[in-house]
Amino acid sequence: MMASKPKLHYPNGRGRMESVRWVLAAAGVEFDEDFLETKEQLQKLQDGNHLLFQQVPMVEIDGMKLVQTRSILHYIADKHHLFGKDLKERTLIDMYVEGTLDLLELIIMHPFLKPDDQQKEVVIMAQKAIIRYFPVFEKVLRGHGQRFLVGNQLSLADIILLQTILALEEKIPNILSAFPHLQEFTVKISNIPTIKKFLEPGSKKKPPPDDIYVRTVYNVFMP
Amino acid sequence: MMASKPKLHYPNGRGRMESVRWVLAAAGVEFDEDFLETKEQLQKLQDGNHLLFQQVPMVEIDGMKLVQTRSILHYIADKHHLFGKDLKERTLIDMYVEGTLDLLELIIMHPFLKPDDQQKEVVIMAQKAIIRYFPVFEKVLRGHGQRFLVGNQLSLADIILLQTILALEEKIPNILSAFPHLQEFTVKISNIPTIKKFLEPGSKKKPPPDDIYVRTVYNVFMP
Repeated sequence: MMASKPKLHYPNGRGRMESVRWVLAAAGVEFDEDFLETKEQLQKLQDGNHLLFQQVPMVEIDGMKLVQTRSILHYIADKHHLFGKDLKERTLIDMYVEGTLDLLELIIMHPFLKPDDQQKEVVIMAQKAIIRYFPVFEKVLRGHGQRFLVGNQLSLADIILLQTILALEEKIPNILSAFPHLQEFTVKISNIPTIKKFLEPGSKKKPPPDDIYVRTVYNVFMP
Repeated sequence: MMASKPKLHYPNGRGRMESVRWVLAAAGVEFDEDFLETKEQLQKLQDGNHLLFQQVPMVEIDGMKLVQTRSILHYIADKHHLFGKDLKERTLIDMYVEGTLDLLELIIMHPFLKPDDQQKEVVIMAQKAIIRYFPVFEKVLRGHGQRFLVGNQLSLADIILLQTILALEEKIPNILSAFPHLQEFTVKISNIPTIKKFLEPGSKKKPPPDDIYVRTVYNVFMP
């Protein structure tokens, strides 16, 4: 019997699920999506005990109903050998992912800020990226001269960093101007066949959040 | 040569480091602490490139300088066999820890709220604990009838849950009244020798946050 495809439960937009889509796509795993559009759909999942902590993202995979973004990412990364070859590499990948997710969190929350705060927040994001996070990854790549962040092979860290860079570039096109190794990284990782396919039109990659997405999120999640 | 003890860099208080202290103590690992008391001490760590993303918690361990709370916890849990016997157990532990950390985060931020908001937040915390998180763990324990949450042996999930329960009980003494299995869990896990020792006076467990701790945090971290 063939394993069934993973099924993702989330609104039809990026949010906290987009990293999961990225990692599945990078691993070459096809998946289905069940888009939450109403409070009632969420309630139905909750009432059926399908959500461990009553929250999405939730991913049905290998007979489990996984929740918590990080736990979902870790499971997929473990299963598809995207978590390094030993505990030392795993720990580096984990730290790089955690740092990048801190930056990505700002991008995820951005569309839900008041209009006045959105422009200010773009400045804060740019500063954090340029001062705190990107210099670390630039130095790592410059230091070992390899294509990937850890262990000379694709890992969860590369995937989440590329996702974050591309999302930031949508708001701040020249964000990588002082980071030549990250520019090269972006091109090279984007050209990995599974990722290249995910970046092409018609993939399950979601567009930048728009008013419809923001309204859907409020509809589904606000009490 | 004996491995040197891990060294923890953080202010002298709970915050995001207290989970790390709990897990090291539960694993029976002795550790040293270097308490940050001034902005200059933090600056010195930053200038010396000791902090990957310029932030603490930072833990010197096994020749590495680990940062990001979750990454530190994962490393210690992996090293000391607190992460389950296979990927399925690991993923359950990971999900339980992530849920519990979401609840613990409210407790960590509580002393930094305005006085008016602190009482309201205690109500919100209690509701989240009682409605969202504790029923999950009560059901898990009732379901398998074992002492530990996952795989019939101590894991990161038990340790972080006990830490969170005890911290909540300080604010809301009867928080477990509707959860008999969690009451029993709390007694049993508290009596594991390494944990029992950590709960006794004179251990490196930190007291509840007071005004001095809050002032220290502002001194060290505010620009």
